[in-house]
Amino acid sequence: MTAYAEMMDFQRETEALAQIAGRLGWDQETMMPRGAAGQRAEEIAALEGVLHARRTDPRLGDWLDKAVSLDAVGHANIRLIRRSYDRAVKIPSHLAAEIARVTSLAQGTWAQARADEDVAAFLPVLAQVVKLKREEARALAQGADAYDALLDDYEPGATSAQLAAMFGALRPGLVDLRAAVLAAPAPAPLSGTFDEAGQLALSQKLALAFGYDLNKGRIDKAVHPFSSGSGSDVRITTRTNPVDPFNCFYSTIHEVGHATYEQNIDAAYALTPLGSGVSMGVHESQSRIYENQLGRSRAFTGWLYGQMRDTFGDFGIADEEAFYRTVNHVANGYIRTEADEVQYNLHVMLRFDLEQALMRGDLAVGDLEAAWNDRFLADFGFAVDRPSHGVLQDVHWSVGLFGYFPTYTLGNVYAGCLHQALRAAIPDLDDDLARGDTGRARGWLRAHLQQHGSLYEPRQVIAQAAGMVPGEGPLLDYLEAKFRDLYSL
Amino acid sequence: MTAYAEMMDFQRETEALAQIAGRLGWDQETMMPRGAAGQRAEEIAALEGVLHARRTDPRLGDWLDKAVSLDAVGHANIRLIRRSYDRAVKIPSHLAAEIARVTSLAQGTWAQARADEDVAAFLPVLAQVVKLKREEARALAQGADAYDALLDDYEPGATSAQLAAMFGALRPGLVDLRAAVLAAPAPAPLSGTFDEAGQLALSQKLALAFGYDLNKGRIDKAVHPFSSGSGSDVRITTRTNPVDPFNCFYSTIHEVGHATYEQNIDAAYALTPLGSGVSMGVHESQSRIYENQLGRSRAFTGWLYGQMRDTFGDFGIADEEAFYRTVNHVANGYIRTEADEVQYNLHVMLRFDLEQALMRGDLAVGDLEAAWNDRFLADFGFAVDRPSHGVLQDVHWSVGLFGYFPTYTLGNVYAGCLHQALRAAIPDLDDDLARGDTGRARGWLRAHLQQHGSLYEPRQVIAQAAGMVPGEGPLLDYLEAKFRDLYSL
Repeated sequence: MTAYAEMMDFQRETEALAQIAGRLGWDQETMMPRGAAGQRAEEIAALEGVLHARRTDPRLGDWLDKAVSLDAVGHANIRLIRRSYDRAVKIPSHLAAEIARVTSLAQGTWAQARADEDVAAFLPVLAQVVKLKREEARALAQGADAYDALLDDYEPGATSAQLAAMFGALRPGLVDLRAAVLAAPAPAPLSGTFDEAGQLALSQKLALAFGYDLNKGRIDKAVHPFSSGSGSDVRITTRTNPVDPFNCFYSTIHEVGHATYEQNIDAAYALTPLGSGVSMGVHESQSRIYENQLGRSRAFTGWLYGQMRDTFGDFGIADEEAFYRTVNHVANGYIRTEADEVQYNLHVMLRFDLEQALMRGDLAVGDLEAAWNDRFLADFGFAVDRPSHGVLQDVHWSVGLFGYFPTYTLGNVYAGCLHQALRAAIPDLDDDLARGDTGRARGWLRAHLQQHGSLYEPRQVIAQAAGMVPGEGPLLDYLEAKFRDLYSL
Repeated sequence: MTAYAEMMDFQRETEALAQIAGRLGWDQETMMPRGAAGQRAEEIAALEGVLHARRTDPRLGDWLDKAVSLDAVGHANIRLIRRSYDRAVKIPSHLAAEIARVTSLAQGTWAQARADEDVAAFLPVLAQVVKLKREEARALAQGADAYDALLDDYEPGATSAQLAAMFGALRPGLVDLRAAVLAAPAPAPLSGTFDEAGQLALSQKLALAFGYDLNKGRIDKAVHPFSSGSGSDVRITTRTNPVDPFNCFYSTIHEVGHATYEQNIDAAYALTPLGSGVSMGVHESQSRIYENQLGRSRAFTGWLYGQMRDTFGDFGIADEEAFYRTVNHVANGYIRTEADEVQYNLHVMLRFDLEQALMRGDLAVGDLEAAWNDRFLADFGFAVDRPSHGVLQDVHWSVGLFGYFPTYTLGNVYAGCLHQALRAAIPDLDDDLARGDTGRARGWLRAHLQQHGSLYEPRQVIAQAAGMVPGEGPLLDYLEAKFRDLYSL
């Protein structure tokens, strides 16, 4: 047996164990009894300890020194295992286990604090998480920038300087567009209530319309929608709100974008380093292009209007055009996940700046709420009214996801590039979307991007698929065109 | 740090990983998408590989040689880790992984074959399971009896000769009682249909009445009801049948017996070898005393009658006494899990004899269906009409559980002993049960047996709790008294 073959057998078991860890995370958010949180934290810590031991196993170092491969798949496997190994050996086992244990508990504390609007109940455990993540970041960075060391885990090859430059180029256009749109007459709002059974039924229909394979996945409810797993077990969650069915529908389409990316990866890559999405930014490009450029298009909302009439009867919107305006209405709001396309990235930039300050030691956890509220007021022109609308709204920091937020906006940027290329490749795509048919769009994304899994580097796979150097231009052009038309600006 | 403390830290992680394996089994039966079966088999194999490596870790041998403990808990931990280690080192890693992989797939094949009434579709994979389990048994037995080596995993200290003698003493009384009861006039059968929502609601009420803690558990539906997990995450499943609500209710009470045994173990034992039920036979004694001696008593069924009237209205049974007779009616049937108290153990004895023959090489898998059908006809006087009523009815053999079936009857024998002692300790228990109050009965079981977890050996903890040498006498006396009264014999 060659060193490469031995390494890949070992890696396959590691990938299988990592899938189990993901499944435990899903269980914790959907099924786990509340009283099991303490025991679950120990279970996850034990499994993370096993994974850390495998990812730092000295045999990996030996195999990597000896492994040779003649094809591109082999080269990519070696490259990705090398990257994982080089990262993992920098993190002490006890620190990895402690992070797993504390974040598992912190997630439950966050959920309770959010329900109770009680920031003080969350801060002590958040301070522990921040301390542990800074420790991890210093171990990884080895003198280089601590935040970039964390970012690299979610978006290999990206740096905060590069993203800050991209965001800086994007921001003025968004700020101007936001001001213009909010000054214009608002479209008719959605009113009335929409029963949960109807929302969940139409949500499932949308998931299927966007290609989700229920034979290799399932849909449940959770506080914070997410997608989880790779290969043939990729589960999503959604949520319902009686007065806001769009929250349910577009959360579902968003998560289906993530999930079908995983489901559409070449099955030959399953349980190898190539068998999952290549980065959070590329992942988000799939969820956002499904949700926004396709799902919130005039053509697709025309079809969705008919579906909503079939499900809920007359719900007070006169026609498809009015419905399109309602779906895409821009209004002041506190919540990132409910934000419209114009304002969404401003929410992300706020978090990006705050979490850099937290990780670099420029902001204390005790000052975080005030910093959030000050920045929110400056960016959005009105004050946060309660913690669940502010610093407690996202799960990410509680589970140690620092360096993750900017990949949301990077994903939007990538989605802009892909969408421009997709429309050029399929000029009559709107004819499909008007029938609720996403097949050709999905086929293009699958062939040009999704099937490759982690075969190529993130920027490379976007550049190949979109046929351009990735940049913020196409996203800004798309938003300008869409919203200046919608608001007759 | 002492050798004992180091060993217990290591063991705690192993116990946590074993809990994860149990959770995956639960997921597979309740939540997993069908298309994920292949990947899940690899995940389980990888985790079982990790567990096997830990259970055979050479450090355990060293720690066990050096470990000293001054108290009973420490002695028990050392004894149980020693037993686990001595067993595990006899099983080659590749065999343990292969058994995990094949049984995971075989379970899915069995479920499909059962749905299709297709024995031929199941036999090839069953043959693989039998071959692997015989290999495991030979490795464990090292020249001694192969079946006993497997039995010892479920019922430490028991032998097939001892159980065969006990079953031999029990059988004539059961055969006579069955013949007499079936010759007597039958009580009014239950008729009509019972909606699923009502069954599940009352099922949950029964679970709570028997002390199930939903803060540390949850109830889902599955093809085959089971209880899973230890400590603070103990989940149960039930099933519904529109014309047979008793199937749902008594499956639930049965599984609550298992689950509350786990939930009631001293919390200080969590994630240690003492923190789970001591044997399958003792486990079954808890599920069966809840289900039968308490749940099917005249007093408790009187309360249940009122609950069913509240839930379903008038369902055609005139009064509590008629209801008691209907709940406890004895009739010919194919299915072990639906069998009445008189006939249940005859179903178990059939399986006990067939699986001994399979494991000892006296019966080929290809001859299993004929052997089952012949024995069934001889024992019950009528022929199996379809495989799901015969050889395909139970999940056990598909997942490699050979040596497990006899613990069901052993559990009934133990329940008989415990019930005799419980009634002596609380002579007016029926006053409680008639109000649906199981509190004093549960308190007695918790204090005398459940809290101890695996602190004492199986026969020892039964003997201590019941104050007698365990034997079949009390069970037979109870069945004779109950059914000769019920059927006026």
